[in-house]
Amino acid sequence: MPGVIGIIGGMGPEATILMMSRLLAGTPARDDADHIPVLVDSNTRVPSRIAHLIEGTGADPTPVLVSMAQGLEAGGASFLAMPCNTAHSYFAAIAGAVAVPVLNMVELTAAAVVDLHPTGPVGILASPAVERTGIFATAFAAHGREVIYPADRDAILTAIRAVKAGRAAEAMPRLTQAAAELARQGASVAVIGCSEFSIVAPQLTTPPLALIDSLDVLVGACIARATTAPHPASQQDLNR
Amino acid sequence: MPGVIGIIGGMGPEATILMMSRLLAGTPARDDADHIPVLVDSNTRVPSRIAHLIEGTGADPTPVLVSMAQGLEAGGASFLAMPCNTAHSYFAAIAGAVAVPVLNMVELTAAAVVDLHPTGPVGILASPAVERTGIFATAFAAHGREVIYPADRDAILTAIRAVKAGRAAEAMPRLTQAAAELARQGASVAVIGCSEFSIVAPQLTTPPLALIDSLDVLVGACIARATTAPHPASQQDLNR
Repeated sequence: MPGVIGIIGGMGPEATILMMSRLLAGTPARDDADHIPVLVDSNTRVPSRIAHLIEGTGADPTPVLVSMAQGLEAGGASFLAMPCNTAHSYFAAIAGAVAVPVLNMVELTAAAVVDLHPTGPVGILASPAVERTGIFATAFAAHGREVIYPADRDAILTAIRAVKAGRAAEAMPRLTQAAAELARQGASVAVIGCSEFSIVAPQLTTPPLALIDSLDVLVGACIARATTAPHPASQQDLNR
Repeated sequence: MPGVIGIIGGMGPEATILMMSRLLAGTPARDDADHIPVLVDSNTRVPSRIAHLIEGTGADPTPVLVSMAQGLEAGGASFLAMPCNTAHSYFAAIAGAVAVPVLNMVELTAAAVVDLHPTGPVGILASPAVERTGIFATAFAAHGREVIYPADRDAILTAIRAVKAGRAAEAMPRLTQAAAELARQGASVAVIGCSEFSIVAPQLTTPPLALIDSLDVLVGACIARATTAPHPASQQDLNR
């Protein structure tokens, strides 16, 4: 009996749709029935992660995220995934509140990057908010690796806002420049750690810097798990 | 408190994603939080509607569809919608099994078409399976209107298969020809009543035949209901 993927989504809703599209595109299928069943809570009313984590204002989103996870579990999800890097700051509380496994996008990405690029600093293309949470720094430190962010944080924020506003073309030169800077600092690989950048990443060319999209890593792990792993492993094994 | 849309989905999964994308595009929003929360059961394992309705073989999908609707209700959906025309053959059983309202895509489409095009036969661009269920014929008959389908059913099936296989360009001439035939038979409007055709409809030009996409009608009704109608109307009022 193949698994049902539960998606803790809506952060934002476009990233959730992007994940579903990539799941569809990534699954070998001749008919609808070959695709993986997915339960999605695209909750656009999760309290702002930025306001809580960075600005120190606003409600703690943890109870809402936990309730979403429990709802998906009750609805029949075999395991859960959350296509939002920033929200992984609350991962431990979410994973601790359900019996089904929760895939950790940030830790899975670190493992994938380390496998393919065994040395040197790892560039991160993500919002300054993600940088300040330290989630990627922590995940890579567990592998003895250092992360670096582009120095011009305003350029990154401007690029994110351009994509959100549907003007992806404006983001491209800024992202290309940020990637070049990471390469100059010695990185051979950068993580796409931001939904907005996942949207434009397929159009981005950044040699000599390789790009690994955290959303693609999560999608690949979901497909592998849903199609080949009938028996849930323990939470501990899951994100190695 | 705005509504949460529950989507009885997965028939197929691409139509479900298309509905979510159109909900997103159709909702006025400056930030993620302005978007409508959506609960989605994209269940790719619903027993084949074609096999049950047309071929007379295979399991009755009703229990699965009812269980999906009840799960979405239990998960907090304020009302339900089902982006699959064929599955509306089971609408009464689904709507009767939950306390929340269920939007009827087929009846809403008939009402929208009749409003805009008050006379003449109504063309339907949908699979021969949809034709044989009679769901559009019944919905339009309630308004005293007749429906007509293109005579060349093989051309329609070929077009559907081409879109499913990612070769949309091949479907275009067949659909254009089918639309021209409907216009020659006196139709001033045709319903897009098939998910595959919804995918390509924006690229289709068929003057003098106007096209109304049942998926767009459903999306419009969902947005209107979720953003402006805090108190669920009775099921009876809902699909008028």
